[in-house]
Amino acid sequence: MKENKYDNESFFKQYSQMARSVSGLKGAGEWHAFQKMLPDFHGKRVLDLGCGFGWHCRYAVEQGAAHVIGIDLSEKMLNKAKEINNSPLIEYKCLAIEDFTYEPDSFDVVISSLAFHYLESFDNICSKVYQCLTTGGSFIFSVEHPIFTAQSGQNWYVDEQGKRLHWPVDNYFSQGNRTTTFLGEQVIKYHKTLTTYINSLIRSGFEITALIEPEPKKTMLENVPEMQDELRRPMFLIVSAVKK
Amino acid sequence: MKENKYDNESFFKQYSQMARSVSGLKGAGEWHAFQKMLPDFHGKRVLDLGCGFGWHCRYAVEQGAAHVIGIDLSEKMLNKAKEINNSPLIEYKCLAIEDFTYEPDSFDVVISSLAFHYLESFDNICSKVYQCLTTGGSFIFSVEHPIFTAQSGQNWYVDEQGKRLHWPVDNYFSQGNRTTTFLGEQVIKYHKTLTTYINSLIRSGFEITALIEPEPKKTMLENVPEMQDELRRPMFLIVSAVKK
Repeated sequence: MKENKYDNESFFKQYSQMARSVSGLKGAGEWHAFQKMLPDFHGKRVLDLGCGFGWHCRYAVEQGAAHVIGIDLSEKMLNKAKEINNSPLIEYKCLAIEDFTYEPDSFDVVISSLAFHYLESFDNICSKVYQCLTTGGSFIFSVEHPIFTAQSGQNWYVDEQGKRLHWPVDNYFSQGNRTTTFLGEQVIKYHKTLTTYINSLIRSGFEITALIEPEPKKTMLENVPEMQDELRRPMFLIVSAVKK
Repeated sequence: MKENKYDNESFFKQYSQMARSVSGLKGAGEWHAFQKMLPDFHGKRVLDLGCGFGWHCRYAVEQGAAHVIGIDLSEKMLNKAKEINNSPLIEYKCLAIEDFTYEPDSFDVVISSLAFHYLESFDNICSKVYQCLTTGGSFIFSVEHPIFTAQSGQNWYVDEQGKRLHWPVDNYFSQGNRTTTFLGEQVIKYHKTLTTYINSLIRSGFEITALIEPEPKKTMLENVPEMQDELRRPMFLIVSAVKK
């Protein structure tokens, strides 16, 4: 079942107040790493899976993309995208990522930011992206790190004073759904192992070109004290691959 | 500094009693996964980095390898290798992995089992392996998983009754040495992130062909009750790559 939490009024309101929603890409802790893994967008046909407010779509256009399609399950997110990140070169479509289909050779670049951990099957995504990309085309995505998604609690293990002792890992090889709390709401995510992410790509015909577990930028580490804890365990995984 | 714990009398004695030492490959929980990632050995020139008792060298010969060189820092290990896994096709050399050098195109396959987490630099290994491999040659290695090496304790977080609550992760992005206890002795290992393992390979010119976080075999899970805990967190990482 495709959960559409972002169309829930209170969840959407909370999400709209996050730094990454208000300030766009520069408000996202992992953007500096994601940005470095993106290819040259000049003249490229781009697909953004789970585009949300459309910040990445707009970035692609600003970097010279010829045409960008952003798909998202949430109408509320897309309405906001059309309001704040509009462009004649961007087409926003209300669609679940699981349901997109495009003809072979439709895109030169496919990107996705923090969306795939909401989807049950990564294999399915890989084969669909492979099919619609041109040969030599790029696929770049970020997800919550398997170490982050393994336990449904998705939280630090703390002592009685609330001090963060360490990050607890458990149930790693039990892939599947995890009910967790995000922005005060129950959200369903799907834990996948690193093995699943990497081998699904390779088996689908992609060559891995880089893998990054991003660390916060130096300025964020200096200005936001709790960012120091982000050096204690990986939260995100960013992978880039090309269609062979 | 190259630590040579395996030449320490008591450590060596302990190691010699481990299942993987007594029973060879079939006594190693990750062997079934490692084996699947190995290429066809027929007529191949093989290098084994950190060969220990020589079980993998012998396997390569049994699978048709033309010539195998096994290097290890420990003379005690090599003496045992020569005793139990001897073959006119295997050459055992007492040498630190950091110190090997071979001419370009010297090998078709380079393997290494659970040795690289004792070495400070993985970049250095990658470039040396790349150099001595033939184009299209295979590099397959296993290491302790970054989630396993992050904390120097390398142990479960337990409650007052000793019950294993979860696997604690901390200091993930602080790469470098960890003093830990293995077989009753203090051992120095070097924690590296997954990012380091994968990107060092790619930057050196390798293409990743598979990545496995092995789970214990079904028979082991059934016969050794504590093996169930191996499903709670990844302990090993196995990567195969080819020289492009």
